[in-house]
Amino acid sequence: MTVPDRYFDDLAIGDAIATASITVTREDAIEFARRYDPQPFHLDDEAARKSVFGRLALSGWQTVGYAMRLLVETKVFHATGILGTGVDELRWPAPTYPGDTLTAKSEIITLTPDPKGKPRGLVTLQVSVFNQDGTCVLAFKPTMTMIKRP
Amino acid sequence: MTVPDRYFDDLAIGDAIATASITVTREDAIEFARRYDPQPFHLDDEAARKSVFGRLALSGWQTVGYAMRLLVETKVFHATGILGTGVDELRWPAPTYPGDTLTAKSEIITLTPDPKGKPRGLVTLQVSVFNQDGTCVLAFKPTMTMIKRP
Repeated sequence: MTVPDRYFDDLAIGDAIATASITVTREDAIEFARRYDPQPFHLDDEAARKSVFGRLALSGWQTVGYAMRLLVETKVFHATGILGTGVDELRWPAPTYPGDTLTAKSEIITLTPDPKGKPRGLVTLQVSVFNQDGTCVLAFKPTMTMIKRP
Repeated sequence: MTVPDRYFDDLAIGDAIATASITVTREDAIEFARRYDPQPFHLDDEAARKSVFGRLALSGWQTVGYAMRLLVETKVFHATGILGTGVDELRWPAPTYPGDTLTAKSEIITLTPDPKGKPRGLVTLQVSVFNQDGTCVLAFKPTMTMIKRP
């Protein structure tokens, strides 16, 4: 499927962006934790059982990583790239576990043209990530720079 | 080095937490991008040269991952774990490149005992990550749950 290139000018507040889904593997969960979040409840079944998670859970940052990948793979931002300047109000309302299937829903909530009139602007999304039961496991508001149509 | 276990009761606003350093490899940068942020300027030298980054740059989320790892490895939060509930005001003021050496500085900015008197509380940190030139490449305010001393 070819997605037409989109630029800052092509976006409107309220535009929705649906993503594909991705299923998390136990192997990838442990690999991520080893590198970026080496806490016992992300690495070891026995430690996880005794923790608030009850069983091996993903690092919350890995859930964010999957949300990013799902957004990139929509190719909606392909023309200018997702050039993140920051993120606000990131929340993990529930854990993600190996075997979960994640899907993201996004909506454009703010569009700010460059104040000096440069051919670009800032785009803020509300992104929510759900597991296979419809439980929200992650919500955040990323802001990125996008260029105007050349 | 043994770090004594610390609980919610042991923390004070203004407490500083210094981390070790970590040097980013090109191999790890590409590996992370392939899995979580597969955009050309994180994967391919030629594409990166033509981008705003000028050369291959890390996914901003990988820089966050390294900050998390540096915080975990201080073992300051070892007793209760870093159980993140959310993050506010995350900013990437400059890119991270392969070869960069990252160090984090953190300070406790808010302590909120459980409103219902449960033996736990919320801790908010201001975390800033610097490269070898002293340039800030990441700042964010994570909030986590910590239990009180048993």
